[in-house]
Amino acid sequence: MSDSKVEKESKNKKRRGKPKKSLQRYFDAEHGIRNHWWPALFSYELKEDDVQGITIAGERIGLRRANGKVFAFRDQCAHRGVRLSAQPTCLTKDTVTCWYHGFTYNLEDGKLCDIVASDNDPLIGRTGIRTFPAEELCGVIFVFVGDEDYETPPLQHDIPNKVGDDENLRTPCLQDEDALALGIHRDCLGDWRLAAESGGDPGHIMIHRKSALALSLDTALSLGEPVTGADSLRIWDKEWPKGITKFFDNIEPVMHRDDLNIHTYGKRPPDGLRVSLCLPSILFVENWPLPGMTQYEWYVPTTHGRHAYWQILVKNCPTEMDKEDFTLRYKNVWEDLALKAGFNDDDIFAREAMDDFYTNRNGWDEEQLFSMDQFVVEFRKLVHKYARGIQPPPNEL
Amino acid sequence: MSDSKVEKESKNKKRRGKPKKSLQRYFDAEHGIRNHWWPALFSYELKEDDVQGITIAGERIGLRRANGKVFAFRDQCAHRGVRLSAQPTCLTKDTVTCWYHGFTYNLEDGKLCDIVASDNDPLIGRTGIRTFPAEELCGVIFVFVGDEDYETPPLQHDIPNKVGDDENLRTPCLQDEDALALGIHRDCLGDWRLAAESGGDPGHIMIHRKSALALSLDTALSLGEPVTGADSLRIWDKEWPKGITKFFDNIEPVMHRDDLNIHTYGKRPPDGLRVSLCLPSILFVENWPLPGMTQYEWYVPTTHGRHAYWQILVKNCPTEMDKEDFTLRYKNVWEDLALKAGFNDDDIFAREAMDDFYTNRNGWDEEQLFSMDQFVVEFRKLVHKYARGIQPPPNEL
Amino acid sequence: MSDSKVEKESKNKKRRGKPKKSLQRYFDAEHGIRNHWWPALFSYELKEDDVQGITIAGERIGLRRANGKVFAFRDQCAHRGVRLSAQPTCLTKDTVTCWYHGFTYNLEDGKLCDIVASDNDPLIGRTGIRTFPAEELCGVIFVFVGDEDYETPPLQHDIPNKVGDDENLRTPCLQDEDALALGIHRDCLGDWRLAAESGGDPGHIMIHRKSALALSLDTALSLGEPVTGADSLRIWDKEWPKGITKFFDNIEPVMHRDDLNIHTYGKRPPDGLRVSLCLPSILFVENWPLPGMTQYEWYVPTTHGRHAYWQILVKNCPTEMDKEDFTLRYKNVWEDLALKAGFNDDDIFAREAMDDFYTNRNGWDEEQLFSMDQFVVEFRKLVHKYARGIQPPPNEL
Repeated sequence: MSDSKVEKESKNKKRRGKPKKSLQRYFDAEHGIRNHWWPALFSYELKEDDVQGITIAGERIGLRRANGKVFAFRDQCAHRGVRLSAQPTCLTKDTVTCWYHGFTYNLEDGKLCDIVASDNDPLIGRTGIRTFPAEELCGVIFVFVGDEDYETPPLQHDIPNKVGDDENLRTPCLQDEDALALGIHRDCLGDWRLAAESGGDPGHIMIHRKSALALSLDTALSLGEPVTGADSLRIWDKEWPKGITKFFDNIEPVMHRDDLNIHTYGKRPPDGLRVSLCLPSILFVENWPLPGMTQYEWYVPTTHGRHAYWQILVKNCPTEMDKEDFTLRYKNVWEDLALKAGFNDDDIFAREAMDDFYTNRNGWDEEQLFSMDQFVVEFRKLVHKYARGIQPPPNEL
Repeated sequence: MSDSKVEKESKNKKRRGKPKKSLQRYFDAEHGIRNHWWPALFSYELKEDDVQGITIAGERIGLRRANGKVFAFRDQCAHRGVRLSAQPTCLTKDTVTCWYHGFTYNLEDGKLCDIVASDNDPLIGRTGIRTFPAEELCGVIFVFVGDEDYETPPLQHDIPNKVGDDENLRTPCLQDEDALALGIHRDCLGDWRLAAESGGDPGHIMIHRKSALALSLDTALSLGEPVTGADSLRIWDKEWPKGITKFFDNIEPVMHRDDLNIHTYGKRPPDGLRVSLCLPSILFVENWPLPGMTQYEWYVPTTHGRHAYWQILVKNCPTEMDKEDFTLRYKNVWEDLALKAGFNDDDIFAREAMDDFYTNRNGWDEEQLFSMDQFVVEFRKLVHKYARGIQPPPNEL
Repeated sequence: MSDSKVEKESKNKKRRGKPKKSLQRYFDAEHGIRNHWWPALFSYELKEDDVQGITIAGERIGLRRANGKVFAFRDQCAHRGVRLSAQPTCLTKDTVTCWYHGFTYNLEDGKLCDIVASDNDPLIGRTGIRTFPAEELCGVIFVFVGDEDYETPPLQHDIPNKVGDDENLRTPCLQDEDALALGIHRDCLGDWRLAAESGGDPGHIMIHRKSALALSLDTALSLGEPVTGADSLRIWDKEWPKGITKFFDNIEPVMHRDDLNIHTYGKRPPDGLRVSLCLPSILFVENWPLPGMTQYEWYVPTTHGRHAYWQILVKNCPTEMDKEDFTLRYKNVWEDLALKAGFNDDDIFAREAMDDFYTNRNGWDEEQLFSMDQFVVEFRKLVHKYARGIQPPPNEL
């Protein structure tokens, strides 16, 4: 009888190993990547004088709107670490006060500027909480999560508005003057990297072929990406954001496999569909769910092993009537049919199904990527090469 | 004042220590033992074309019935590790397809034989998922969980049908032609080893003395095993399965302790009762709950710290009327009275009560076994000596 | 691009560090402190012949009342570690029996004195379970949790009845002949040390200023402790219990900060209020919620990261009518208004709000204590210096 150590060793022989070094920063980024802009809340979720607390990449971030402007700060009192947002207390327009012992911080620079019952305390002016750059764009509040001394890049560097630098390829985007952006965000199980890959991965389209969205629009979704479509990939790493696009308009999608008794149900392939994935973790789907619309998704790392799944549809609406019309259709059709049960809930199912393998079973070592995964591989390279920083675990923040 | 390190050391002095080496493989087997047959599902739980996913000893196993035959395979796509059973997709009779990207595996050998949208993919034929031997016996599907290159022993080697090689001692068993097996299985808290020990342990009978089963049948259950019964133990390690039997018909059970104000309630001791425990983890109780019946139990390691508790009653039913009669009595009497609230639920209570001690409090080192535990000790030796392999943790599978 | 190790190192630079050594035993005491008396149950919770199981500092303790007397013992059978209290079985007045295999222990010394089905077993008399000293005072059962060979100090050493040795400063206390003690205990999230600190911390009074208790009694609660009150602190470390008191009657509390638009609501500051915190982990609030009453609180370490929150109000009631009156008011007013929703539930909220910072985010290193925290700092010193022992983790008990 072999002894148990030998038994275990023999099990280990089959480990495949991965060329980890060439993607090391990607593999290190389980808590997120750093020095990027992330969506925090919809603008309507933060009303004047509201204080809300969120978590991005393990950072507890407080948001307050004062005189219309959004301020973001570490949501953790310097004193004993409670979240300021746990019981919002704002005594003046330019401060936020900790509900517990009255530590009062300046919203602009985070400095401790007062303590309610001890206004001459020697600690005043000598400590504080860090602040984060915050901006609003098209109804979404974005926060720059990174080093305090990092020179903050423009928000536009982290938001796609076209495929690379190709001005000819434009669909409605958040930066457009007439854009109306409507959507949702929710907390989901799963590593943010796997979520991003599962969103961008062209090979998984098969799971959507019977979706309510495809059936109701009579859209024929490919059973996956044909290998011949490999040249339909474009990487854009000259400017920000760095990303990769899959063109679906110059390939012949696989719609039927008669020998396997499988086919797709709709009649017409989607028109002008392009799927891009870019840093920090954004899916950008053009001409979707219908031509003339764009779907954005973010997979925002929150706490370890979870992410906020952001989904936004953008349409240009020059008139009030356009806005009303899109809003009506969004609430009554698209939210459910495109973003939830009719389509994207399938993606959430798939992401959660991957989780155990990567979390508990050496998925990063054991996975066997194949030709259809070029998109995934290129995204990993982009993260490794261009992420502006790797997020440490919460206890090192 | 002593410093805190010293304080801790003084606490440690009383550690008892265990002669661990002589039972090392038993102690290593927290994830299960390997290269054995385990019950997976009842046959009726896997209908034609069904795909079901189960977990045995950390192995995620998929089961499919095609043309009546049961196939078992690693329930984890070679590509990105999702469980195939999460959304069963069978496009042909001889394959199982991953619902996520269309990886299609041959049921016979697990080879990747197709990818839905990429039928010429170079990966095809070069990888696959492992398969497991599967057999059905008396309405139960068994799977052999072990090394792919292990020469699979006959299923009969892992299923008791008599006490050792003694042909005279036979009660109804799964291998009998006329046997009808009826039962249940459920997920329970607790290490599979402790579950097996608690099932076989003759000393715990006291907990059942007031059970509905004992009271309603007027069965007098011993307050435990008297030490004088030690010679009523028989170890059978010549053939498979390796096991140990406790005979209750040649000992004088303790029914009263008047000085302790305790007694047993029934009138007649059970007739012909024998309790056996054998590898991999099977309780085999003959002439129970009544003479002419046999109860099998398996404590199948599933995920860490949990087990599937299988309970089956077997009776020989040569005619259809016998079958109908036993089925009626099983559903209306035995399932509840013997397998659930009337008796075995007490065992589940006891197993769960042991858990904290062994899981969080050094139970393996601190336990103090005594004379009544010979059965337990012998079972541990059998595991150490004859287990065909030790299961590694899931991330080394 | 910097490599990820460097990125992490640069994050670490800002670690503040703590003069850990001078408080080492306090920091080591996450599982509790040892060789102290702790409240276990109210007397009425343990009726004659009852067996109850509780957990203090990771120790599983069983309590039984026999012939009126309370016995405490390790609630873990020496055999296989189940809690005796899981299914109380007492066959005689002077023993407790394990429900599982009949191990029977003498209540006085814990010795194994019998085994139900094996009354001549060689193990009898050779092993046992340890016992703990137990006493009742004013309707509360206290247990001494510590080393078996530690010379048990009098219960009075671990229960405050006045501020230090100052006989002039007395309010009703548990030791008083006429005292009636009424209260509750509950399981709460949070490290017992943080709970004690949050109870005693004078700076947190601000959170109670709008409490139902303060508003209904028209009590003006300070917005915190002014720094000028630092000389109102008295440390008493000559006798037991070792403790620290904050006098609120010789400071000028801050009731308004008009520049911050904040004020307190009641009209009269509390009369004669003194707040003491003493070992092992007791809050002692005199003349509260009204003059002539005393509130005791214990923050009893139970399992890791949790504590039992004990709250008791004491009033001297020389006559039966006094007792009836206080009982009526306690049940109809004080329990809810003082101990629960009207006041102390706010403290629970604050304690739980601190938890993540200390548990997951290096709170012990990152916290920034300030002038108002002298009370907290002194308590930590007392624990470091005078705790009679540091509790090891459960698997070393």
